[in-house]
Amino acid sequence: MHELMIVLDNHSKTPLYEQIYDYIRKNITDGKISCGEKLPSTRFLAAHLQVARSTVESAYAQLLSEGYLESKPCLGYYASDISDLYLNKTAIEEKRKEAQKVFLRPPEKKKYRLVFSPDENEFSCFPYAAWRKISRDILSQDDASLLTAGEAAGEWDLRETISRYLYQARGVNCHPGQIIVGAGNEYLLLLLAQVLGAGKRVAIENPTYLKAYQTLSNMGYQMLPLPAFKNGMQIEELQYTNAEIVYTMPSHQFPMGTVMPMKMRLGLLQWASRASGRYIIEDDHDSEFRYRGKPIPSLQGIDHNGTVIYIGTFSKSISPAIRVSYMVLPKELLSAYYRRCGFYASTVPKEQQKVLAAFLNGGYFERYLNKMRRIYKGKHDSFLALLKQESWVKKISGDHAGMHLLVEVKSDKSAGEIVKEAKKRGVRVYALEEYFIFEYRDEGFLPELKNTLLLGYGSLTEAEMKEGIACLREIIN
Amino acid sequence: MHELMIVLDNHSKTPLYEQIYDYIRKNITDGKISCGEKLPSTRFLAAHLQVARSTVESAYAQLLSEGYLESKPCLGYYASDISDLYLNKTAIEEKRKEAQKVFLRPPEKKKYRLVFSPDENEFSCFPYAAWRKISRDILSQDDASLLTAGEAAGEWDLRETISRYLYQARGVNCHPGQIIVGAGNEYLLLLLAQVLGAGKRVAIENPTYLKAYQTLSNMGYQMLPLPAFKNGMQIEELQYTNAEIVYTMPSHQFPMGTVMPMKMRLGLLQWASRASGRYIIEDDHDSEFRYRGKPIPSLQGIDHNGTVIYIGTFSKSISPAIRVSYMVLPKELLSAYYRRCGFYASTVPKEQQKVLAAFLNGGYFERYLNKMRRIYKGKHDSFLALLKQESWVKKISGDHAGMHLLVEVKSDKSAGEIVKEAKKRGVRVYALEEYFIFEYRDEGFLPELKNTLLLGYGSLTEAEMKEGIACLREIIN
Repeated sequence: MHELMIVLDNHSKTPLYEQIYDYIRKNITDGKISCGEKLPSTRFLAAHLQVARSTVESAYAQLLSEGYLESKPCLGYYASDISDLYLNKTAIEEKRKEAQKVFLRPPEKKKYRLVFSPDENEFSCFPYAAWRKISRDILSQDDASLLTAGEAAGEWDLRETISRYLYQARGVNCHPGQIIVGAGNEYLLLLLAQVLGAGKRVAIENPTYLKAYQTLSNMGYQMLPLPAFKNGMQIEELQYTNAEIVYTMPSHQFPMGTVMPMKMRLGLLQWASRASGRYIIEDDHDSEFRYRGKPIPSLQGIDHNGTVIYIGTFSKSISPAIRVSYMVLPKELLSAYYRRCGFYASTVPKEQQKVLAAFLNGGYFERYLNKMRRIYKGKHDSFLALLKQESWVKKISGDHAGMHLLVEVKSDKSAGEIVKEAKKRGVRVYALEEYFIFEYRDEGFLPELKNTLLLGYGSLTEAEMKEGIACLREIIN
Repeated sequence: MHELMIVLDNHSKTPLYEQIYDYIRKNITDGKISCGEKLPSTRFLAAHLQVARSTVESAYAQLLSEGYLESKPCLGYYASDISDLYLNKTAIEEKRKEAQKVFLRPPEKKKYRLVFSPDENEFSCFPYAAWRKISRDILSQDDASLLTAGEAAGEWDLRETISRYLYQARGVNCHPGQIIVGAGNEYLLLLLAQVLGAGKRVAIENPTYLKAYQTLSNMGYQMLPLPAFKNGMQIEELQYTNAEIVYTMPSHQFPMGTVMPMKMRLGLLQWASRASGRYIIEDDHDSEFRYRGKPIPSLQGIDHNGTVIYIGTFSKSISPAIRVSYMVLPKELLSAYYRRCGFYASTVPKEQQKVLAAFLNGGYFERYLNKMRRIYKGKHDSFLALLKQESWVKKISGDHAGMHLLVEVKSDKSAGEIVKEAKKRGVRVYALEEYFIFEYRDEGFLPELKNTLLLGYGSLTEAEMKEGIACLREIIN
């Protein structure tokens, strides 16, 4: 039996039970109470210290739950065998300081004077006031809706709103129950891979949206890149593979900017219908922005056989900070979704889903899109006109849609070399090459691809475009 | 050459180019212009129709981009070969109506009069006013922060705030750079599986938090359930497996409510340090709610070797609608995280991250936790007292923490049968059995487990507890 020499301080802010706990714990970690030693009973110690028995019980319960003591039925409390591995607070504090030294904040993205990014948007026209007002209204509507869990696949109202929008704008033909809302396209692909099951073989256009490629690779899928740098993916090439899934951007291929011809669309749908388990993932990332003619209807809308999985996003049409994407599953995949993924809570806050639904239903989104389409078309036209004046510009493609152009240059320098030199001058332009799947970057490369730059203009003013073009002119000439 | 009999309506709201487009498209889909047929040049057709040449060019561009026409250099425009698969708008509308019939809104969760759920919280004390005020402040701070993309691993300020909180509250010892913020524990496990790589073998307590089990299974991991229904997972059993990863809840095992003794903690850390690539996933889901003694420090805090991956959440401490969880990665895993997952944008809106950081830094979270701890302790004490009066209650365990109790009943009916009968009376209680990994539900089951109910009380009033207990009394006696 260990004799405890505890002196309690009745005036301390530390509760009595904690003083007892601290004393015993310290004695055990210091080895003053050794392994297997019996401790006094709670009744005895309470009488000895002149405190309530429950005070001692609390201290012992804490020591028990942390493993410093063991309780043997009908026998009492014994000190446990704890090795010297246990760190005391001081040691933890030292470790923490040391960790702080080792780690630095990860380096910020290198800042350039000018970035010709295909992903950056113009925000100046966003109806902030309307968005804030809707947010405030939603926030003050009722308490419960703020904190109770929402629907796993997304709030029903938002899904209904999206299904109406997709039907009108994209010819997508679905019931709200087929729509899954999630925090970004990549998240939806992570879900989709669980729905489709492990080990699929996926044909993907090359070059492509590399995040999709990497996400599906991360999920253990075998990726089969198909050349898509001439007129998009070719059905003949697809048929040589043993692919079960095709990932494609028929309305506006990224980064090539090509539109899949009707013939290829029908061929692709036929391919999918020829064997069960074949699916087409249609990524319709920026279909909202076409500057000539009407938007091209989705592949999903002309599919008879439930083989198209349609994915779209508000991250492109509103902003990358709005992490709301949607996936339309064919009916046949819904039960697999509910079985394998139905337990995942939605990754988009209910509040944000409600704000977005109100933003769409109030007509703000449509008006914003119309405005932005005009603005981006203006930028597109200016940029195109500026580039056409340049003697080093050999060919421009991917125009009339999206927020970037492909520019083949007349130069001895490759696009990669031009990118490097521009970086040194504080200007970030992109080589088309950067969008090729790494492992296939050097295979069968056409010489013009090596000489093609990708220039995004979505976030730039005309003055900035001129500045960037002047910089390229200097480098190339 | 096809002769086009277009009659343009200059007074129509439909633009002229669209009238031309519509006419040609209709003629192609109707087969009036057949595959391979040459169309007039834009110059000819413009003169013929007495419209600007650019009007015809727009129509042709649209038809080209949708694949109805093909352009042969120096030759002109030809109708493409489109099969009858192409659906016109009417057919789409019909399909849509049919789809609406087939699908119904997925059935709402069956509503019970009373739910003894371990997941439901009490929200009445949430400082809605403070949360709203912070939200409004953040919303009106500056426009750019609302729409520009945030940091992939989470906003730095929130990560710093979390690292301070975790150090003070849980003894977790980390740099903010080690923290990854994500929309819920399951999402973080999806990321983690990509960081750790494919095909791992994971030992997991049984019974356990089944969403974690299912998430890791979905990621293709081989799951190795270890019995944890007596005194938690046993290190001896772990050593018989070829597990590389352990998923565990040392501070408060769900659903058993056990606290892992120090000896087992040290044993687990030793196991992890004995081979490279071994990791312990410490799920610290509800450590904030202990009603006796101090919270138990985390396993991460006593780990010397960077083998513990710590996961915690605000979904439990604030509400399931706040989908914000955090994962602390050991330094050694950071480069794999950035390589494989660094490209994923954060799944938590920047706005919500800022609100949460301000909520923590303003002391609201701490005050809220203190208040809720008192409230849940009150509920816990009442529920325990009520249950102790019942003759059919044989043994209560898992008390003094969390928001549920395990109750072994004296009855000929199994817990599963009691659950069924209670459901009929509109009361949802749970059988401990429901939390066992399905495939192992009947293996080596102790008889007392078959007779144990899991009763959550977090969202219930004392009157509701009494009502539920009365219902159980009726069923059992």
